Amino acid sequence: MTKQSLAGKSVLTTFIHTPKLGELECAKDALITLDDQGVIQSVVHLSDEGYPQNLAAARAAESLVEFGQDQYLFPGFVDLHIHAPQWPQLGSALDVPLEVWLQDHTFPLEAKYENAAFAREVYADLVTSLLANGTTTAVYFATIHAEATRILADTCSAKGQRSFVGKVVMDNVAECPEYYRDKDTETALTETAEFIEYVQTNHSNEDLVKPIITPRFIPSCTDDALRGLGDLVEKTGCHVQTHCSESDWQHGYVIERTEKSDANALRDFGLMTRHTVLAHGNFLSDDDMAVVKDAGAGVAHCPLSNYFFSNAVFPLRRALEKGVRVGLGTDISGGPSASMLESCRHVVNSSRLLEEGVRPDLDRSERRTEDSRADFREALYIATAGGAEVLDLKVGKFEVGYKFDAILIDPFAKNAPIYKDFGLFDLEGIAEKIIMLATRANIAKTYVGGKNVSSAQT
Amino acid sequence: MTKQSLAGKSVLTTFIHTPKLGELECAKDALITLDDQGVIQSVVHLSDEGYPQNLAAARAAESLVEFGQDQYLFPGFVDLHIHAPQWPQLGSALDVPLEVWLQDHTFPLEAKYENAAFAREVYADLVTSLLANGTTTAVYFATIHAEATRILADTCSAKGQRSFVGKVVMDNVAECPEYYRDKDTETALTETAEFIEYVQTNHSNEDLVKPIITPRFIPSCTDDALRGLGDLVEKTGCHVQTHCSESDWQHGYVIERTEKSDANALRDFGLMTRHTVLAHGNFLSDDDMAVVKDAGAGVAHCPLSNYFFSNAVFPLRRALEKGVRVGLGTDISGGPSASMLESCRHVVNSSRLLEEGVRPDLDRSERRTEDSRADFREALYIATAGGAEVLDLKVGKFEVGYKFDAILIDPFAKNAPIYKDFGLFDLEGIAEKIIMLATRANIAKTYVGGKNVSSAQT
Repeated sequence: MTKQSLAGKSVLTTFIHTPKLGELECAKDALITLDDQGVIQSVVHLSDEGYPQNLAAARAAESLVEFGQDQYLFPGFVDLHIHAPQWPQLGSALDVPLEVWLQDHTFPLEAKYENAAFAREVYADLVTSLLANGTTTAVYFATIHAEATRILADTCSAKGQRSFVGKVVMDNVAECPEYYRDKDTETALTETAEFIEYVQTNHSNEDLVKPIITPRFIPSCTDDALRGLGDLVEKTGCHVQTHCSESDWQHGYVIERTEKSDANALRDFGLMTRHTVLAHGNFLSDDDMAVVKDAGAGVAHCPLSNYFFSNAVFPLRRALEKGVRVGLGTDISGGPSASMLESCRHVVNSSRLLEEGVRPDLDRSERRTEDSRADFREALYIATAGGAEVLDLKVGKFEVGYKFDAILIDPFAKNAPIYKDFGLFDLEGIAEKIIMLATRANIAKTYVGGKNVSSAQT
Repeated sequence: MTKQSLAGKSVLTTFIHTPKLGELECAKDALITLDDQGVIQSVVHLSDEGYPQNLAAARAAESLVEFGQDQYLFPGFVDLHIHAPQWPQLGSALDVPLEVWLQDHTFPLEAKYENAAFAREVYADLVTSLLANGTTTAVYFATIHAEATRILADTCSAKGQRSFVGKVVMDNVAECPEYYRDKDTETALTETAEFIEYVQTNHSNEDLVKPIITPRFIPSCTDDALRGLGDLVEKTGCHVQTHCSESDWQHGYVIERTEKSDANALRDFGLMTRHTVLAHGNFLSDDDMAVVKDAGAGVAHCPLSNYFFSNAVFPLRRALEKGVRVGLGTDISGGPSASMLESCRHVVNSSRLLEEGVRPDLDRSERRTEDSRADFREALYIATAGGAEVLDLKVGKFEVGYKFDAILIDPFAKNAPIYKDFGLFDLEGIAEKIIMLATRANIAKTYVGGKNVSSAQT
């Protein structure tokens, strides 16, 4: 499929992004020029000297694309934590305890991906849906199955989504059901190495899909598997993803088994690197955060799934203040939403809940955690530039040298207008309204590397 | 405007509702027959004797309306708490403290409704938007302005939304800004009485719009005003709405000023009746809840605005277990969403947060409030039948004698498909997916009293 591309063109658009944590830039009628690879070559602001000449030149060369006056360009979202096989159960079985959710719903569903046809059908729908939701970079847990994991990588490539795809390792007989675990440690390691080679052979030229080493979490893996994967990290330089200190149970399990915290154990297995994504991290201590920071690893904050499965809210502000890299994740399907916009709202909401506390039966001072709040600017940052920083990718902002991964927001989309302009708001106010109120239906276009990979139906 | 009506017709549809707290009924291909007033005359289930004959008779009489096989009928939403004038600032200024939010944003905005043209423009957009969001019954705080409040009532009537509209009373010089408060106590009481008469004179025949007595909350009213409104309640039998024990500050203020809890003070002013809606109620003690229950009053649970302005989460399950009536509110614009579906999600989320706690630095036992969780069934109940019960209205379920206030959900709406059917879900699973995932764009039709008052654009 040939996709409409902005490569080599100039775009006239109002854009909104967060170049740094806490900094929101709203640029009216800016001119962004892309090179032939879809990388941003120049950003010229309305107030810049030379703006009229640049605009006239692009017009004369017939290389100018003009977005609507009521449309706003945002960086595409970087979703750091998605369980691809759980897509069919998004928004279901959330009224049951974790054990029931895993044993009666999630593991039986993940086991179905032994069937390649099922994987093909689900993954096509998933990637299409996430692109329509504005997720331009996705970090995926697949399943234990080699073929289905290759299918996910191929699907991302075919549909043009930037992605990291991991074959899940779970070989610990004591913790994984017989019908859904790796045959043995050796097979788990071999199939991981083979998958890495498959992606590097088949997708290395397109700068889009990358393999990621994926122990599900320490409880589901043997020490041999964890050590073997650590060796593979060293050998290949691949990214790593796993769950870390998510819940009381997981946090306690790792301490009991390894006599170390999750963060220290992962480091000692060789799994804590500059390219490691740690999902959740709710129970990371200050010492653990120092370990994460020293390694240059990052956390995938998944606020919505925190509500269901984590027993607490991730202390986002504490992590940011300690210099830990943090990005945002939907945690499909532990988090019942495919929308990173909705996840941004949950960043704000959950931070307020942590700051104010939840229990009306406690005194205010016992209930609160001072200085915990995050606002829409910080939410947008971790959903875009922050997540990109965790992955060491040049996406997530509109700056020279960054890939043009972007979404075009239409606040007045049919059946989803998010506000009427009563003349009360400046661009920053509009940015807040969009982050707090927009839904999938407001995403008119999605671009990855300058290519238009999804468009709303008109 | 003549609106398409189902009055006198039969509808063939799959419906989903919660006739009782905790009970979800999913009825495939049922036949609902309406009388000439839009009231449900009969509900015939697929398994009922006589179903084929009933269906054939409706077909023969050409009075059968068939909804789509992939569409699902739900009761319309009853939104118990909306600040109508705050509509323009939905989703904005949420990064500032309450005092700044009130003094720099909310009060200046509410003061603008002195201008009738502004009120007309905003209220038309608000009511249209809420109907499109599936809110068939709305309980509105207007402003202190007599004319603008009449305009809101007229707008609801013209657009066909069932509603309770209140002129806000705030006459306490010590707590209200000079530019936005009632001229004096006498004027506040007179204008409230005149507004009640206006609605009863102009809208009594249509069984749609009703007046509601609306002291903003105790801090903003003098004792004389509160007593005067209590007398008016006794004289007119009107509904009452106010804020009650929302935040630490409000809860403490009332105790300091009246030497009683908010609930007791409201009761003693004659404002706690079978027809009273208490917004929030986060800090109601067990004794307070007994007062509310004895009066037969109800609580408008507003989970989303709890996150921003209430310092705690409303203990929903405790209230329900004590037999307090509870409905759901968006609290526009303290809650940054116009969607009761989204509010349902926040019922679930906030209840989980209360049950599990938020602070990872506390031991699990100190963090938790056992038995606090609510699921999607309970959320749907309080958003529909529960809210109707608070108001003493016969809406919110598909039963004989109830008004046909309903929304038709299309899970596969353009630009907003919420799932692909991988053959994994029964009707109850689909109901959960809809409550957890649907947005405004999935609401194909909205009916009030059998009249089609809103349709998605195709």
